Amino acid sequence: MALSLIALDVPGGDHAPESTLKGALQAVDPSGRWKMDPARILLVGDEPTIRAWLAANGGDPGFRVLHASQAIVKMMGAVKAGHAGAAVSMGNTGAVVGAATLVLGTLPGCLRPGIAVTMNFGGSPLTLLDMGALSQPKPENLVQHGIMGAAFAKCALGIETPRVGLLNIGEEASKGTDLLKAAHPLLAAAKVQFVGNVEGNEVFRNKCDVLVTDGFTGNVLLKFCEDFAAQMLHLVVGECAKAGVAIPREVLGRVQKRIDYSEYGGALLLGVGGIVFKGHGRSDHHAVSNALHAAQRALDARINEHIVTALAEVQTSATN
Amino acid sequence: MALSLIALDVPGGDHAPESTLKGALQAVDPSGRWKMDPARILLVGDEPTIRAWLAANGGDPGFRVLHASQAIVKMMGAVKAGHAGAAVSMGNTGAVVGAATLVLGTLPGCLRPGIAVTMNFGGSPLTLLDMGALSQPKPENLVQHGIMGAAFAKCALGIETPRVGLLNIGEEASKGTDLLKAAHPLLAAAKVQFVGNVEGNEVFRNKCDVLVTDGFTGNVLLKFCEDFAAQMLHLVVGECAKAGVAIPREVLGRVQKRIDYSEYGGALLLGVGGIVFKGHGRSDHHAVSNALHAAQRALDARINEHIVTALAEVQTSATN
Repeated sequence: MALSLIALDVPGGDHAPESTLKGALQAVDPSGRWKMDPARILLVGDEPTIRAWLAANGGDPGFRVLHASQAIVKMMGAVKAGHAGAAVSMGNTGAVVGAATLVLGTLPGCLRPGIAVTMNFGGSPLTLLDMGALSQPKPENLVQHGIMGAAFAKCALGIETPRVGLLNIGEEASKGTDLLKAAHPLLAAAKVQFVGNVEGNEVFRNKCDVLVTDGFTGNVLLKFCEDFAAQMLHLVVGECAKAGVAIPREVLGRVQKRIDYSEYGGALLLGVGGIVFKGHGRSDHHAVSNALHAAQRALDARINEHIVTALAEVQTSATN
Repeated sequence: MALSLIALDVPGGDHAPESTLKGALQAVDPSGRWKMDPARILLVGDEPTIRAWLAANGGDPGFRVLHASQAIVKMMGAVKAGHAGAAVSMGNTGAVVGAATLVLGTLPGCLRPGIAVTMNFGGSPLTLLDMGALSQPKPENLVQHGIMGAAFAKCALGIETPRVGLLNIGEEASKGTDLLKAAHPLLAAAKVQFVGNVEGNEVFRNKCDVLVTDGFTGNVLLKFCEDFAAQMLHLVVGECAKAGVAIPREVLGRVQKRIDYSEYGGALLLGVGGIVFKGHGRSDHHAVSNALHAAQRALDARINEHIVTALAEVQTSATN
């Protein structure tokens, strides 16, 4: 079943190929967290380099290898041709999103893809989109993002009826920009569990499972959140040290995990003709391993089929 | 010198009049932080209530009192009439901004006011605006906000040449929404030290002293920041407790202060015909005391005169 392969961009990322190949090994480790089948992982990159690295690091557990000088494009081509069902990259965001959109195209019925990230900061997974694929979306794009996010949350995260919220500056439907004012009634009419506007202070207060935002605000918020969390921890550790109190490393690790969306595989490009996960350039092998597993989960849950069905339902009901 | 009075909305806020009157007393405490002159504070509200509270709490140190059933409107009227130079309120944001705009009008040359907050999270004060006075601004509004923010940072915070940044999703001038693309060259041409775009992860990285953003993004970011910081601290304290480590209360207090913009008096309405500080509804007496002092500082620094001059300079150079 060729479609079940997950392609990995081996040279993508700041610490590649060490991080990517080590991540692939970790994903298939029989005593590890994910225990993936090595035969489902397609390593895309310079074959001699990959073979040499594997030989020097305990041998090839049974990966598939696809030689490529332009790994991202080759990987997307493999998905397009049906040789793989999903693609994972820690490479340049613009290159990955560009190649995915160009090579894979959009899913039937999808107007514009969106980038989604999932974080479990508030104690339950929250999927936020769009995080920057579209800087000036239209109301109908936001509605589709809500539908696609809900399909993802249901199929991949197991949330039976995902609550969809709209990031805004007040509770009332009349609040916010023209874009949001127009998107609000459309989301309310869509086949999703729309819970209305969600304000900045409610993002991580479990008011929704999927939070829709324009790509601009999403991008600013995500970048802010990551850096602010790191600075907060640094500040607390520093102030505690001054007071003679040492915060245990495992505490820092647990807190950091709560704000780390690589726990959910990184950023997912929703709406393109394939499963595409994009991790941070600075990803380590843990993040790569998580991304491979998240891609497998999304692929096996057939989320794109669910998305196409959900988008078609809305179009049908809009026509009726 | 009637203009030197700072009017306080006594019934405004969740814990008023206790919080406001206690805050006024703290501001004038000769052994306290601010040592303000009681004769410069004009208490606006129900006079019998104010007199009774003061009598029951050590007596009146010499405040001025202005009786009013509608404190916010009366207070703005006092500023408009020149009986006071500044107004401080912990009341409803909409009511304060509305009354200020309506009663005081805008400063000569100012197209639209903006709400500014100052935080010292990154180790130096950062003034952010607009935080929600304008939900759909025009490019020229953003430029004026940069100019007004810089005048405030210079006069009230003592930053000789404030660096002005534009919150955006990338470094290049071509990034972001149409609004930001249009505002970028205007800010570059304005008489401010424009340092270009600042991304979400750079907000607290000391890239600028004044960060200009549209009111929508600013509102989301500020609300998110406040709640996220509280949740982070809660999470760290909880995880530390599980590991048997107690974080000292004074450490928490010091960290909280770093993200508390009431340290700088709360939100400042820039561009109206008077100094108006608006604190959180939940403000305690410390916040009220800080706001009174911030208002006095802004008033004595004559920031509105500087703003009018700065706005006129831009208009002149635009005409030439």
